[in-house]
Amino acid sequence: MSADLSRLSLNTATTKALTLEEAVEVAARAGLGAVGLWRDRVAEAGLQRAAAVVREAGLRVSSLCRGGFLTAVDAEGQRAALEDNRAAIVEAATLGTRELVMVVGGLPACPSPGTAALPDGDRDLVATRQRVADRIAELVPFAEEHDVRLVLEPMNPIFAADRGVLSTLEQSLDLAADFAPQTVGVVVDTYHVWWDPKLEAQIARAGAEGRLAGYQVCDWVLPLADDSLLSRGYMGDGYVDFRAITRWVAEAGYTGDVEVEIFNQAVWDTPGDTVVATMADRYRRLVLPHLS
Amino acid sequence: MSADLSRLSLNTATTKALTLEEAVEVAARAGLGAVGLWRDRVAEAGLQRAAAVVREAGLRVSSLCRGGFLTAVDAEGQRAALEDNRAAIVEAATLGTRELVMVVGGLPACPSPGTAALPDGDRDLVATRQRVADRIAELVPFAEEHDVRLVLEPMNPIFAADRGVLSTLEQSLDLAADFAPQTVGVVVDTYHVWWDPKLEAQIARAGAEGRLAGYQVCDWVLPLADDSLLSRGYMGDGYVDFRAITRWVAEAGYTGDVEVEIFNQAVWDTPGDTVVATMADRYRRLVLPHLS
Repeated sequence: MSADLSRLSLNTATTKALTLEEAVEVAARAGLGAVGLWRDRVAEAGLQRAAAVVREAGLRVSSLCRGGFLTAVDAEGQRAALEDNRAAIVEAATLGTRELVMVVGGLPACPSPGTAALPDGDRDLVATRQRVADRIAELVPFAEEHDVRLVLEPMNPIFAADRGVLSTLEQSLDLAADFAPQTVGVVVDTYHVWWDPKLEAQIARAGAEGRLAGYQVCDWVLPLADDSLLSRGYMGDGYVDFRAITRWVAEAGYTGDVEVEIFNQAVWDTPGDTVVATMADRYRRLVLPHLS
Repeated sequence: MSADLSRLSLNTATTKALTLEEAVEVAARAGLGAVGLWRDRVAEAGLQRAAAVVREAGLRVSSLCRGGFLTAVDAEGQRAALEDNRAAIVEAATLGTRELVMVVGGLPACPSPGTAALPDGDRDLVATRQRVADRIAELVPFAEEHDVRLVLEPMNPIFAADRGVLSTLEQSLDLAADFAPQTVGVVVDTYHVWWDPKLEAQIARAGAEGRLAGYQVCDWVLPLADDSLLSRGYMGDGYVDFRAITRWVAEAGYTGDVEVEIFNQAVWDTPGDTVVATMADRYRRLVLPHLS
């Protein structure tokens, strides 16, 4: 592990074509300190094996992505969501990370992400957000038992309808306020929150409350990709002010890992070592200087 | 004018293929009470003639779109922006509307809307927002003289980089707070603000402060169009909860016009009378019942 990359973490979504073993190998070879894991890659490798692979490579698991999708209206949908999230909590604990990133889900009117609304579908955003809060409350005791934190991820409003009805850090912290900071936290993903007028104040609040559980960096790139989920880029390729946001995160007392999570077809089509070299270069130039 | 459509206004952006005269004719024939005008259509018709055409059709001008683009860093860019906005203020007054909608502009790193960032461009969002506030302050005396209101439009964060660095109603009202409510107001455009967790509270605040200067309705449609600017749809085609938002607007005391402003290629390819019939139908079903 090289000293200056000790806090850099490769999220497996950035190297989508790689298996978990390959991603861990690429990250370790480049001198990174951690990996962020998606559940699909963990499942492919097998949970125990995934934990062993990361541990043997000398890396940390910065977070597990993702729990969530908690917005179902019907009892069966809610039961299934709770069951899936309990499984994710167990996986996080087994993998040795406290941080389970929660993508909370969209409106009931949305049949699946990125698709047209059901004509008579439920568009009640206020009630949907309340259901998220209710489900989080139901998950908290189980998360506490397993010493895992539910990490609320406010998402760019571009995804409010179909992926995540938590849209701001303030809203996420308001929801978290009912629970202990070691059990419900928040993650700052620059792609999702870079535009927020209250970002500086709410990052400071997250730090002061002990809830700043993660820092994910990638850029807001224009024009948007045909699939808007994939409009992320390497730091420096878009419009995010990494200097300002990284300083706010550092000033809030954050000392954890910095995950790079880029959904981008061109990045996915690039060899893993090249991807990690590029992200390490951008991290050194645009993020690291402001991190302490 | 039919009684139930007396508050419905056709924004000329919805019928992009029509001249101002044609749009006014279509709106009047359908029984609408008003039109919202874009400056390009006004310029084509000629300012005095545009004013006469609307007046003679017995319609109101609900707003003029748009002033703004106030984020230039250089003195010449700032001077040009102020000059253009003063011209827009005069046009609004001449057209008989008090409401000049302000799309405040994006980051200096953005060479033009929808395009990639300049590699060494200025991404300082905090400073950019401050320049907007400074330019608004410079325009206020001129707007007051002409009895025109600068109507700040918070835009969906999807446009924060390239079109409008005002992203929430709260932020817009905070900026407006330094000025008289008859001179600096806000507009609620459902497409831009539907996702905002603080929307109900901030609409109420806008009403209480006397700053609620307009209500624009169109829907957030998925999947996003290739040109994300055009991802708007008729009310009911997307994810917006018009019942909730319209009630909040009504409860805030808003009694003005309801503009339909839809940027959408399929709508633009449809004959004007059909477009207005569809929007009137959706308005009657989804908006009007909650407007009082």
